[in-house]
Amino acid sequence: MTNYKHIFSQAIDRLHTEGRYRVFIDILRNKGAYPNARCFHGHNGPKPITVWCSNDYLAMGQHPKVVAAMEEALHDVGAGSGGTRNIGGNTHYHVDLEAELADLHGKESALLFTSGYVSNEATLATLAKLLPGCIIFSDELNHASMIAGIRNSGCEKRVFRHNDVEHLRELLEAEDADAPKLIAFESVYSMDGDVAPIAAFCDLADEFNALTYCDEVHAVGMYGARGGGITERDEVAGRVTIIEGTLGKAFGVMGGYIAADQMIVDCIRSYAPGFIFTTSLSPVLVAGVLASVRHLKASSEEREGQQAAAALLKRLMAEAGLPVMPSVTHIVPLMVGDPVKAKKISDILLAEYGVYVQPINYPTVPRGTERLRFTPGPAHSEAMMRDLVSALVEIWSRSELELKKAA
Amino acid sequence: MTNYKHIFSQAIDRLHTEGRYRVFIDILRNKGAYPNARCFHGHNGPKPITVWCSNDYLAMGQHPKVVAAMEEALHDVGAGSGGTRNIGGNTHYHVDLEAELADLHGKESALLFTSGYVSNEATLATLAKLLPGCIIFSDELNHASMIAGIRNSGCEKRVFRHNDVEHLRELLEAEDADAPKLIAFESVYSMDGDVAPIAAFCDLADEFNALTYCDEVHAVGMYGARGGGITERDEVAGRVTIIEGTLGKAFGVMGGYIAADQMIVDCIRSYAPGFIFTTSLSPVLVAGVLASVRHLKASSEEREGQQAAAALLKRLMAEAGLPVMPSVTHIVPLMVGDPVKAKKISDILLAEYGVYVQPINYPTVPRGTERLRFTPGPAHSEAMMRDLVSALVEIWSRSELELKKAA
Repeated sequence: MTNYKHIFSQAIDRLHTEGRYRVFIDILRNKGAYPNARCFHGHNGPKPITVWCSNDYLAMGQHPKVVAAMEEALHDVGAGSGGTRNIGGNTHYHVDLEAELADLHGKESALLFTSGYVSNEATLATLAKLLPGCIIFSDELNHASMIAGIRNSGCEKRVFRHNDVEHLRELLEAEDADAPKLIAFESVYSMDGDVAPIAAFCDLADEFNALTYCDEVHAVGMYGARGGGITERDEVAGRVTIIEGTLGKAFGVMGGYIAADQMIVDCIRSYAPGFIFTTSLSPVLVAGVLASVRHLKASSEEREGQQAAAALLKRLMAEAGLPVMPSVTHIVPLMVGDPVKAKKISDILLAEYGVYVQPINYPTVPRGTERLRFTPGPAHSEAMMRDLVSALVEIWSRSELELKKAA
Repeated sequence: MTNYKHIFSQAIDRLHTEGRYRVFIDILRNKGAYPNARCFHGHNGPKPITVWCSNDYLAMGQHPKVVAAMEEALHDVGAGSGGTRNIGGNTHYHVDLEAELADLHGKESALLFTSGYVSNEATLATLAKLLPGCIIFSDELNHASMIAGIRNSGCEKRVFRHNDVEHLRELLEAEDADAPKLIAFESVYSMDGDVAPIAAFCDLADEFNALTYCDEVHAVGMYGARGGGITERDEVAGRVTIIEGTLGKAFGVMGGYIAADQMIVDCIRSYAPGFIFTTSLSPVLVAGVLASVRHLKASSEEREGQQAAAALLKRLMAEAGLPVMPSVTHIVPLMVGDPVKAKKISDILLAEYGVYVQPINYPTVPRGTERLRFTPGPAHSEAMMRDLVSALVEIWSRSELELKKAA
């Protein structure tokens, strides 16, 4: 007879043994005082902390325009949508936001999902199912949600080495020229902070008659003159078949979307179970995102502040000999290379320095590349950064981790 | 060479040919005046309508306590959580709501997801993967999200006839006694309004050493003395291994959850990609749900109002000879049996009578059972119902559909 308890208990024990059992830190942010928050960890009541690992990259989740728009929607139409997009849950806010997002990316249409995860999973799975015999070419570091969508599509998958145009070409050349093909990749890889060679991927797509799918969740709002992402900055948005983005990071709220030709969007809208059979995004959230997207289309102040903060923190870390990884974006990853040490450093930072940065362990990053990942934004001051770097240097010595010779 | 445009265009044409191309009705509800709303369809500006197909079953999405709690959270912590539950997105609201939901179902733990769809997909797929050789026994009318989770688990599936205890027994008997087993079903089936024989399923689970999974999305908040669902009403919550619910229907906001033993919840929390790799629910939504769940634990007024409204509407429809289906719950389905006619009736109701009820077509229900599905709640008055029934009788005659002899 199956002993279920024993099986579940073993599954949890494995995580403890590998040092990657996750404990969620219980916090509340202080609106208007980003990146400050209160931490409910431990037994002495809420304690003030500084958040260094939020994906609310530009603090738009606390922007007065966003908060005001949400308050207005809450009082105008109430909390939830009350249904799927097809059955009672299609509000005027949803319609307006889809038009705004289509415009952001210069596409004919856009489609909202309850999360970026769902937008990736549902779109990739559905798209490939609509194309019999489709082969998906997937970057080896693609996000879990893209991997889930590709797997759930049931079609053939070829994995190319990270950002490797030549390897992708080899894989494309090996397949039947007549088979439908889809090249799937991210623009900014959030754990390393590097950027995909999108134009080169699009050249290959043209040459081999493939569709392209670009996940821009760590770029929308933050790159391009209007926040259209790396595809806007690199002027390749018109060449990418489907751009996918999130409303829960730089836009500061919650949800996901795709933008593409009207026909493709209509297909996903009509065939994707993960879109059809779920309650639509709360109109309160949608109203907040509308304000956020509109603001970031017109204002570059937040983007510039974020880039300046990231550049300064990278420089300060490098000068102190800390092993900051070679990111070319707003992501500032610090290599530790061991799950237990990464967790320990994070624990000391929180307990002794009031610094909150989550350790990043497997399966979010490959084993042996465990790290701390900092996301400085326009509201992180130079004084905060100098305090952080001093703390890290002290803990690095205490943990018998090596500091490089100062750069 | 693949002609992608042609393939996508054919996929859309198929929907038009079958009469099931979906047009989303563009509406905004009027807070404080449920079930009234504004419809943006057509060209003459917003038009007042009455909503008859919302899953905000108890109008909790407009409850003053819910709205006040959301407003407070919005001003206290801002719009979004800013991260996954593990990386920056675990707020004190999330912790409190999980405790509240565990208590609602008398379970040790609960876990929040971004939607009910995701909670079903992620939990079923992950649970079965943790149990090598697991066989899932699934009711033939289970929701698309459960089917997705079961398929994505990659394990063996046996489908039993809807609510058929004897058929389930036969299927269980046919399998190896030592294989892990999971019986998955819903408590209330939302398109027919019937209820599962949960106690009998639990008897079989005991006899065959199987786990049980019960989707209560169309029951939580609405059945049981505290809104714990059919499992509370029928006093079987303690016998069901995992209870799954939604925060987007009777609780009026958005999101999903499971409640179970601490060990099982910890496994799903630690292993489910659909939980791990996604931005957590906005704290604004979570605060609203907390207020909603707490209110409905203490107040039965909304539940009683809903049951009375559903009973009255069913009686009025039956008296008028309309083909109301034999629901034993708050769901009031009216059989049409043809997708084109269902859509036409719905269009006439909206255009001529200001009545909004969405036609329910394939794949939401089997082909040939297309229907209109009404969800009267505590705020639908007898006068509204009499107007609705008169309109339906008029359209039924006009559409050359048959009325039964008045009951």
